[in-house]
Amino acid sequence: MTLQFPLAQSVDWSAGAAYLDGAFMVVRDAKIPITDWGYRRSDVTYDVVSVWDGAFFRLDDHLRRFRASMRTMRLAPQETDEEIRRILHHLVALTGLRNAYVAMDCLRARPNPGERYHPANARSYLAAFAIPYVWLMKPEIIERGAHMIIASTPRIPDVCLDARAKNFHWADMTAALFEAEEKGADNPILLDLDGNVTEGPGYNVFCVTDGLVATPDRNVLEGISRLSAIDLCREMGLGCGLRRVPVGELLEADEVFVTSTAGGVIPVTRLDSRILGNDRPGPVTERLREAYWLKRRKGWHAEPVDYASAQPR
Amino acid sequence: MTLQFPLAQSVDWSAGAAYLDGAFMVVRDAKIPITDWGYRRSDVTYDVVSVWDGAFFRLDDHLRRFRASMRTMRLAPQETDEEIRRILHHLVALTGLRNAYVAMDCLRARPNPGERYHPANARSYLAAFAIPYVWLMKPEIIERGAHMIIASTPRIPDVCLDARAKNFHWADMTAALFEAEEKGADNPILLDLDGNVTEGPGYNVFCVTDGLVATPDRNVLEGISRLSAIDLCREMGLGCGLRRVPVGELLEADEVFVTSTAGGVIPVTRLDSRILGNDRPGPVTERLREAYWLKRRKGWHAEPVDYASAQPR
Repeated sequence: MTLQFPLAQSVDWSAGAAYLDGAFMVVRDAKIPITDWGYRRSDVTYDVVSVWDGAFFRLDDHLRRFRASMRTMRLAPQETDEEIRRILHHLVALTGLRNAYVAMDCLRARPNPGERYHPANARSYLAAFAIPYVWLMKPEIIERGAHMIIASTPRIPDVCLDARAKNFHWADMTAALFEAEEKGADNPILLDLDGNVTEGPGYNVFCVTDGLVATPDRNVLEGISRLSAIDLCREMGLGCGLRRVPVGELLEADEVFVTSTAGGVIPVTRLDSRILGNDRPGPVTERLREAYWLKRRKGWHAEPVDYASAQPR
Repeated sequence: MTLQFPLAQSVDWSAGAAYLDGAFMVVRDAKIPITDWGYRRSDVTYDVVSVWDGAFFRLDDHLRRFRASMRTMRLAPQETDEEIRRILHHLVALTGLRNAYVAMDCLRARPNPGERYHPANARSYLAAFAIPYVWLMKPEIIERGAHMIIASTPRIPDVCLDARAKNFHWADMTAALFEAEEKGADNPILLDLDGNVTEGPGYNVFCVTDGLVATPDRNVLEGISRLSAIDLCREMGLGCGLRRVPVGELLEADEVFVTSTAGGVIPVTRLDSRILGNDRPGPVTERLREAYWLKRRKGWHAEPVDYASAQPR
């Protein structure tokens, strides 16, 4: 397709830049028609990649996952992966942000009036935006370690909706966030219907017992930060099991941490009524967190943003 | 709150009228910010009421259910129920439509930048629109009877998300619609994780065996058209059980029908490989369907639209 890439000059892009169905605009102008099924049936998939110190982190992995999610949900925008990559670079370039939260959505429109009212008759389209970096939790919470609860609402099962296709079916997550709030905790962890650990709103969950790391292998998004933590475990010679993790194992673990694009490796120091590691981030978690940020500062999986694309030549 | 009700004159409202967070507009201008959680986390509830021959059907019941759904999902717009009623009347009055599909949504915005990123910090707001009446299925399909399949994707369980709070978590429904398409059927019926009948995309399911009617009592939206069918059964002296309905019972039933605001009572004449009632709508279904439309023509639960509200005095 033919894309028009505007220059940054003469518009204030600092609050964020967006791309919607072929056109660039400031983020506050990016809006979804109330009748589109991306909203009205949450018939949409998305991905989020971070920019840190002027570079995307694992952009190839995010683009690959985004395309896989689109296939699962039978969504296909007109843009190719290379076009999406150029759009994301340009969005960050317009804002000039060195640290950014960059989201890409593919959503279903709706059939035209008079056409059969079926998703097979509706086209899908791309939306994306870059805004200032969003921390999943405030940096001071990440420093002290997050206080979490095991939510009483179970995660929507994979058989109903494949969690690997990143989606906005968050009612279970939202209920769990309110429950955490009521119990004075920062965040929740959700179980599956059989009492195994799944994930939380925006993060994967890991536990460490006797020096061995484990993270759930089903009913979870296969997070890119999760992948990074698994890679780091391997590099550091730590055993990391991808398997079923019963809630009892989590509650009795030596350490618990979560991983997210919006925060990297985040220690958990309280879980329900339990205080872990004397209320301080555990040693394995800290080693992983330090390695994560050290490697990122050194350019691990980094793709520098093409800031020049939004400037006059 | 102070509402400004515009007059219909000098704008073409025929494609639909909308209300969004305090303001009226033509429906194509009603759009949801891409960053709002109503879209981005499907943190939204909704309801749909029909207007037929210039009157709302069971508007009180819809308003009551909408308020109950909002409570369940911890959403609270600034509008009272009476204000919502006036808004819905005015939307239809602007369009002048005698038959309309009228939707009301309450969705969560997002926290302001810098505030804690939690749904408890985000306000919620009302959106609504009236457009020309949408049939769930084409009238000719409703006449011949719908061809349905039992979907292989199960319905999201109630423990994850209370189906009584009408919501846009439709990925299971969308997958089932594609499956029906592939199998040459019109529509799907979804089961729960234990093989009991739940509902389909936009409708409740009933079966008739030996003159007795039954419909599932759990993991379903408590549809207003479902309620109307139950009321009709009582008036006509037909036994109607609200209970667990195993898929085997549905597959062996004498008759199957579905109910929806977007179509009333709709016969099912094929279900998977089974042909019901010689491929014609069954006698109980037909009696219910005729009674439904006869009573509606006579003003059953009808609230005439206040068309004058959009005209100069």
